[in-house]
Amino acid sequence: MKKPLILVTNDDGITAKGIAMLVDIVRPLGEVVVVAPDSPQSAQGHAITIKDPLRLKPSKVFDGIKAFECSGTPVDCVKLANNVVLNGRKADLCVSGINHGSNAAINILYSGTMSAAMEASLEGIDSIGFSLLDFSHDADFEQGRKFVTKIIQQVLDKGLDNCKLLNVNIPNLPESEIKGIKVCRQADARWNENFQEGKDPMGRPYYWLTGEFQNDDTGIDSDVAALDEGYISVVPSMHDLTAYKAKESMGSWFETI
Amino acid sequence: MKKPLILVTNDDGITAKGIAMLVDIVRPLGEVVVVAPDSPQSAQGHAITIKDPLRLKPSKVFDGIKAFECSGTPVDCVKLANNVVLNGRKADLCVSGINHGSNAAINILYSGTMSAAMEASLEGIDSIGFSLLDFSHDADFEQGRKFVTKIIQQVLDKGLDNCKLLNVNIPNLPESEIKGIKVCRQADARWNENFQEGKDPMGRPYYWLTGEFQNDDTGIDSDVAALDEGYISVVPSMHDLTAYKAKESMGSWFETI
Repeated sequence: MKKPLILVTNDDGITAKGIAMLVDIVRPLGEVVVVAPDSPQSAQGHAITIKDPLRLKPSKVFDGIKAFECSGTPVDCVKLANNVVLNGRKADLCVSGINHGSNAAINILYSGTMSAAMEASLEGIDSIGFSLLDFSHDADFEQGRKFVTKIIQQVLDKGLDNCKLLNVNIPNLPESEIKGIKVCRQADARWNENFQEGKDPMGRPYYWLTGEFQNDDTGIDSDVAALDEGYISVVPSMHDLTAYKAKESMGSWFETI
Repeated sequence: MKKPLILVTNDDGITAKGIAMLVDIVRPLGEVVVVAPDSPQSAQGHAITIKDPLRLKPSKVFDGIKAFECSGTPVDCVKLANNVVLNGRKADLCVSGINHGSNAAINILYSGTMSAAMEASLEGIDSIGFSLLDFSHDADFEQGRKFVTKIIQQVLDKGLDNCKLLNVNIPNLPESEIKGIKVCRQADARWNENFQEGKDPMGRPYYWLTGEFQNDDTGIDSDVAALDEGYISVVPSMHDLTAYKAKESMGSWFETI
């Protein structure tokens, strides 16, 4: 049987520990190609680079794996991978991450990791974004290896039908304490922003974004609830943002015009 | 009755023609505060600035209106507006745009205009993003004035219940040829990317993103279909990306783990 073509990307940059783990996991599963940012691109959301040219350079970060570093955003990486690096060959799977930090709940909107996976899903490619609930540079990704491998294997075996994108978050626990994997919905949580205000060396004011994550969602089937219980959360996700209920209730709003 | 507090932002920058029109429209409707990027921020999606401090400067672009220009992304503008400029006062309405160019279909994902409005909706603020299907710098926004005014007035009067975000696109037609306003769903269209490849003055290769919009969605209730027919499209939109059908069908995938 032909080996699946697996595209790997992330938002923490090609030298991050999380992507090294992901490459290590998919290496035996197919033909692996990596296109990842040449610098950290966290919180870039679905940004793309249109005003400037992009650079793409071969990378030797992963022994024996075809890899490129890109000057753009995570979504740029996927577009360049599909159109230039793979030159029209369609990947069978795109995996993004493993992100250093949670992309559960509304963090999917801000996340470069998830936006890269979503971009691949827009191209019809089965896509998975992985995140570990540990922001630290030297987070221990080994603890999730068994589960990440299992999820990727399931998607390669069964394929994604009703959606093309999974948002996977891994609790920051030793493997023995992870209770399993739960398919969930996105929690309706929020950020309480705050800005650190200060003056720069020239005496001019600045504002630096910081904030606290707050989960008011009391449902037991949300990703945040699953993670709190020690499960890995899997949220099947999509790019259709239509609020269908509101579409029905607003149907008569503008008939008079 | 107390005047509503209306926050205005965009992604084309505070000096763009589209935001001038929007400010002109909302000026008589409430207390208006503008926080917009100090430079063009198209296609920034839901990107936020976390590695660098942000700058916020009073602007005199709009006569008699409290306005600030911000060094960050459109989403940064909304966060700064809510937390610093309005200092905890909650806006009654956020309007974003009017964008120079379409944000129909999947363009909502890439759009800074729509991401700014979505950010405000995450804060529980009724929010509307407006876009005109004309990319040009000196697009004629006057043609949509009557309809934009009507939509804002409706939202101020009735409030948004089942969703907090509307994606409004205006066809590039004289007012007399616009047939009315249709509440729609997001078309499942796509971009066929292409990269302009070249060499810079140092002889190094570069890749510049370009592409063509392709609509394969044949449904008559999509935003692209409404725009093609000469209607203004209104898509009630949300930030819950869960693919609920897939959630049901995948419920048993991981039970064995």
